[in-house]
Amino acid sequence: MLRLGMVGGGQGAYIGNIHRLASRLDGQWQLVAGAFDVDPERGRAFAISQGLDPARSYGTYQDLIAGETAREDRVDAVAICTPNFTHYPIAKALIEAGFDVICEKPLTATLEDAVALEKLARESGRFVGVTYTYSGYPMVHEARVRVARGELGPIRTVQVEYPLEWMATAIEQAGNAQAAWRTDPKKNGRGGSIGDIGTHAYHLAGFVTGLKLESLTADLATFVGGRALDDNAHVMMRYQGGARGLLWSSQIAIGNSNGVRLRVFGENGSLQWFQEQPNELVFTPLDGRVQIIKRGADDLSEDAKLRIRTPPGHPEGYLEAFANLYAGFAEAIRARQEGREPSLLGQNLPLAYDGLKGVAFVEAVVDSHEAEGQPWLTPMAV
Amino acid sequence: MLRLGMVGGGQGAYIGNIHRLASRLDGQWQLVAGAFDVDPERGRAFAISQGLDPARSYGTYQDLIAGETAREDRVDAVAICTPNFTHYPIAKALIEAGFDVICEKPLTATLEDAVALEKLARESGRFVGVTYTYSGYPMVHEARVRVARGELGPIRTVQVEYPLEWMATAIEQAGNAQAAWRTDPKKNGRGGSIGDIGTHAYHLAGFVTGLKLESLTADLATFVGGRALDDNAHVMMRYQGGARGLLWSSQIAIGNSNGVRLRVFGENGSLQWFQEQPNELVFTPLDGRVQIIKRGADDLSEDAKLRIRTPPGHPEGYLEAFANLYAGFAEAIRARQEGREPSLLGQNLPLAYDGLKGVAFVEAVVDSHEAEGQPWLTPMAV
Amino acid sequence: MLRLGMVGGGQGAYIGNIHRLASRLDGQWQLVAGAFDVDPERGRAFAISQGLDPARSYGTYQDLIAGETAREDRVDAVAICTPNFTHYPIAKALIEAGFDVICEKPLTATLEDAVALEKLARESGRFVGVTYTYSGYPMVHEARVRVARGELGPIRTVQVEYPLEWMATAIEQAGNAQAAWRTDPKKNGRGGSIGDIGTHAYHLAGFVTGLKLESLTADLATFVGGRALDDNAHVMMRYQGGARGLLWSSQIAIGNSNGVRLRVFGENGSLQWFQEQPNELVFTPLDGRVQIIKRGADDLSEDAKLRIRTPPGHPEGYLEAFANLYAGFAEAIRARQEGREPSLLGQNLPLAYDGLKGVAFVEAVVDSHEAEGQPWLTPMAV
Amino acid sequence: MLRLGMVGGGQGAYIGNIHRLASRLDGQWQLVAGAFDVDPERGRAFAISQGLDPARSYGTYQDLIAGETAREDRVDAVAICTPNFTHYPIAKALIEAGFDVICEKPLTATLEDAVALEKLARESGRFVGVTYTYSGYPMVHEARVRVARGELGPIRTVQVEYPLEWMATAIEQAGNAQAAWRTDPKKNGRGGSIGDIGTHAYHLAGFVTGLKLESLTADLATFVGGRALDDNAHVMMRYQGGARGLLWSSQIAIGNSNGVRLRVFGENGSLQWFQEQPNELVFTPLDGRVQIIKRGADDLSEDAKLRIRTPPGHPEGYLEAFANLYAGFAEAIRARQEGREPSLLGQNLPLAYDGLKGVAFVEAVVDSHEAEGQPWLTPMAV
Repeated sequence: MLRLGMVGGGQGAYIGNIHRLASRLDGQWQLVAGAFDVDPERGRAFAISQGLDPARSYGTYQDLIAGETAREDRVDAVAICTPNFTHYPIAKALIEAGFDVICEKPLTATLEDAVALEKLARESGRFVGVTYTYSGYPMVHEARVRVARGELGPIRTVQVEYPLEWMATAIEQAGNAQAAWRTDPKKNGRGGSIGDIGTHAYHLAGFVTGLKLESLTADLATFVGGRALDDNAHVMMRYQGGARGLLWSSQIAIGNSNGVRLRVFGENGSLQWFQEQPNELVFTPLDGRVQIIKRGADDLSEDAKLRIRTPPGHPEGYLEAFANLYAGFAEAIRARQEGREPSLLGQNLPLAYDGLKGVAFVEAVVDSHEAEGQPWLTPMAV
Repeated sequence: MLRLGMVGGGQGAYIGNIHRLASRLDGQWQLVAGAFDVDPERGRAFAISQGLDPARSYGTYQDLIAGETAREDRVDAVAICTPNFTHYPIAKALIEAGFDVICEKPLTATLEDAVALEKLARESGRFVGVTYTYSGYPMVHEARVRVARGELGPIRTVQVEYPLEWMATAIEQAGNAQAAWRTDPKKNGRGGSIGDIGTHAYHLAGFVTGLKLESLTADLATFVGGRALDDNAHVMMRYQGGARGLLWSSQIAIGNSNGVRLRVFGENGSLQWFQEQPNELVFTPLDGRVQIIKRGADDLSEDAKLRIRTPPGHPEGYLEAFANLYAGFAEAIRARQEGREPSLLGQNLPLAYDGLKGVAFVEAVVDSHEAEGQPWLTPMAV
Repeated sequence: MLRLGMVGGGQGAYIGNIHRLASRLDGQWQLVAGAFDVDPERGRAFAISQGLDPARSYGTYQDLIAGETAREDRVDAVAICTPNFTHYPIAKALIEAGFDVICEKPLTATLEDAVALEKLARESGRFVGVTYTYSGYPMVHEARVRVARGELGPIRTVQVEYPLEWMATAIEQAGNAQAAWRTDPKKNGRGGSIGDIGTHAYHLAGFVTGLKLESLTADLATFVGGRALDDNAHVMMRYQGGARGLLWSSQIAIGNSNGVRLRVFGENGSLQWFQEQPNELVFTPLDGRVQIIKRGADDLSEDAKLRIRTPPGHPEGYLEAFANLYAGFAEAIRARQEGREPSLLGQNLPLAYDGLKGVAFVEAVVDSHEAEGQPWLTPMAV
Repeated sequence: MLRLGMVGGGQGAYIGNIHRLASRLDGQWQLVAGAFDVDPERGRAFAISQGLDPARSYGTYQDLIAGETAREDRVDAVAICTPNFTHYPIAKALIEAGFDVICEKPLTATLEDAVALEKLARESGRFVGVTYTYSGYPMVHEARVRVARGELGPIRTVQVEYPLEWMATAIEQAGNAQAAWRTDPKKNGRGGSIGDIGTHAYHLAGFVTGLKLESLTADLATFVGGRALDDNAHVMMRYQGGARGLLWSSQIAIGNSNGVRLRVFGENGSLQWFQEQPNELVFTPLDGRVQIIKRGADDLSEDAKLRIRTPPGHPEGYLEAFANLYAGFAEAIRARQEGREPSLLGQNLPLAYDGLKGVAFVEAVVDSHEAEGQPWLTPMAV
């Protein structure tokens, strides 16, 4: 097993718990160290509750780096589960200290930080994975493989959306901590819904189609009173080569729990995937019938099969997708440790450059919205 | 029964047959006259096949006007089922001769004609109905009533789409007459998918929400080689009062037969309607559960109930929706004949001004797309 | 057009209205005469409201027979829309007077009557159609053709159900006339849910599979207090040749509006059809993918295509299915009048023998339930 | 963490892997010992691959008992993942040696063994959990709570089914080991589909409704040539108090991956749950609207909330359900170790008596089918 450390993600943290569940599922990772909490006492109690050696519960990420660096059995990688604006300094320090990093998205809160971090990751040779969760789903890999194989022909248009309902009212003013930092430009960055979830949609579309963005134009809106960032975003996209895209992200779309939906239309067929029914991929060939491709079917690609634990009809979900990222990160890190190429499981993972693309996308969306004359802009990394 | 005449819509015509089926269903209309075909012989044979008096099969619409004007039992209204660019002269002649008109959408092929026709309709006092079919569905009326009642609160964003697959290849070059005129700018007007089906989506969104457009910006694409008009359109919309909208129309969206879908999100709830399952309306109140409102349920509005023929679970569909337009037109015409206010059935119908709005929308979409700098434009009628 | 008469089905009658809508849709039938109501005045007022010549509004079915027999332009067929127990005497009189008959299901209220009526129909040569509505749906014909072609291989098991919710409480005691006669053994016959709707399910299964019943065993229940007939029925079936079946009918299944569902499993594939989404047929070949066959698809059978009016994605429903029965009856009657074989449209229609089979099925179900020792029984006609 | 041992479930075993994944997810169990394989070498290699101390890889379950009994850090419980007919001797030996047991279903291959094992479990006071997976789903608990609270009123009828497709051909003759033992009466017991999956359906229906069976009558069929046990079963059920039930299990239902579906109808409402979309519960109150209750909704019962890891819209699936059983077993075992009552998580678990009920159900089904005269039989434990 690989040894995992964690910064942030202590008692009550949503995403930290997801990282722990996901890392544990396949028996590839063991959480052994952490700086879980700004309050060291609480962090220590939490570490103990997780069965950790209290000696490896650290007060700060700097302490964690120091402490782990001193150990023979130091952690193989550290997961960063802190608010967006702290990703950069923590990741930078970890990389410079020689640790591999698993970073929550967005990679950073500013484009400047993202550029610097991506450069650092590239030049240092450290592994930096970014948890774009939806690219962990096996049927998303299946979709990617089918597009890459040309089953759809050249792609014409991509419709991608990520509607949520939980911020339809001003819950950030009513004590919801998750909503509070997401609506604070200092902690979250310039994008509201577009940064929080639009980036997931954007990554998913690019991951499946392999298309690179040429330019975009966007219209942001803030519907909930007192909110400083957008809670609804519309983006028209033009991809290199002529394909078009339409992206909608929303935090106020009542009735939608976590409605990530991707539809890809090519010359010869289409694919549709909906995250709330993730075990199916809907495929329609030109002049053919709508077909349901089931997770676990015999004719799936190896890429998908590697990311499946149960037979068709035995649903896998969000945690399994997240676990697939952790399994992939493990394989990629091991391969590097062992000086070999990673297997398929360790390929097609969201890395630092994907993180940079996401931050650059948000920057371009906000710039387009704010500029006079609704310009088509090209993100600085695509 | 009211007496119906028809121009166009003869042997093999798709939409003419729909008009006949729809007008017949409720026993309110009897087709008694027509100028069905540019070939008078074929038109006459068709008239006979429909059980008409051959004396009322006319060679041209001018003959029809002359012949019917001379009769005591002249037709009450004439349905225009000809290609777009002929709507204006035919409708103008009919109105000027004192006939009520039922016109296929779009109202006309050019904005100039639409403005003139709407003015003529208004000033003449003749009835001019436009067959925006989707506003005939009872659950669309139900949605309209619920929004009007404030059940959703102020509207925030509207997602509307109309994807089709049948023109995903160049069938207009392979002898498909329906596709041929739709892709010919002279016969169809400036909008391809946006004119053919985007206008339906635009009308539907406005019909349900009552919102008026403030401005739009659009991106058109033509994916099928040799096609002169757009076959995929993305439109970002801003409504008066601050609501936003996103509209997608496509003729190349493989897997979609007739995928009209409307989602409306307000402060207090949302509604979703999908034309391929038209007997359901999905309603989610804020902080509540997703609910299925069934056509035929006891607590529907009178507006919806008036447009329903069968109990819940006994599906009604496209023809019944179309028949609801014809039933509404009949009521509106009778009310005018009888000098009274129409009942609910004769209200909330698509009329000449709605037709004008559709043409103005297409004009603005194409203008926005073609202009430098992707401007936000306001249609001349909203 | 063929001339239609009607017995029963006057003001406020549910099924009479359905017959009128369905007969009108395709312009094949004109309702010209009727004995609509036990109250002749009301019947006459109703006839006038329907645009009939008042001279052809009759006080009784006997009067209708006498009056129409005397006319040159006598009706071609008479639809019987009266309560079950009157079907037999009315049909008998009509047939003996030389009229063709369209009879609501069940054919009769007793097996004795059904046997006699079927014999009379057969020997007289009159046309007797029975409105098993669900066999009018085009995708049900498509299913039938695919089974007959062997696409599923030999059938193994059939799951068919017809759950309803509207009689979940004692509405027959609260003034609901539709429920009142359905729960009265004298008017309805021995079967409650099994007679009212179970027969539809049974017919549908036999229609699609072509299988004949070998034997059945049944368990009936009456859940609503004070009700004399079953409101929930479970039936295990064995078909000739070894296939098995399971049938559930219920009038108390809250949440189900009109949930007719058929699933057929063969050696090489399966088919599934759900009446509330009737435009789709779900087909799964052995070792293949679930596929959606859409009404209107190019590769449908001629049998289905003949029964379709609109393209894929433009939903047709219950009335269109009912209209398909009327169109088929028209073709069968015309073919007989013209001394020729009917086209496909006039074939595979529910006739008197199908009506007899339904009544025999109910008889066997009730007998099996009431007998000691839960015997497997064979209906007298299969 | 609790220490887990395992008998069976080695390299290539399907269900053993599921147990490991499920036990690992929540960090409550650590697999530390096993007799994984009839081939000790292979078992030892497998143990090492799982990171176990090779000293705790045993050749037989007897060795495991001996070895673990001798250790201070002996396992807290042992999971039995061997073929059905070995469950009894292994469980008996473990219980008699003082170990808690987690047993795959069915509890045993014969009723005699089941009776003996349940008695032993009861009298010994050892914990014996049985992995009826579907009762691990949070929305199944939600359904149970809602029925228990009376939200549906008295239950009237239950429709439960478990169709599968994977044994639609004679794969047991083509080398499929999973199918081979399932179709071998000696290894599997008397029930084919009814024992393998019908028991799941039966348990699920009883778990949710709390109803106890009064009697049943059944019809079994074997469609695949050369198969000794049923591969399709129809069962009519009468519950104590008057409710009825219908159960269908099938291994030959092409198109169904793992189609466990439960529908419960009461006087005041209904609930529907489908395992392939397990995050939703469909609830319809009398005279109300169909509602979607989402996993994670704020108004769920504590029973459900305790079994949920992610918010609504972030799907959980089969492994999470299985993990809920393991979490519940852990809580129950800890509570007993600590001499306290278990929390809600350790309640409503499938235990030895549930296992006995399942075996008794299969016995009665097969007896009813085989007997003359299709008797209604009462299982010896309900």
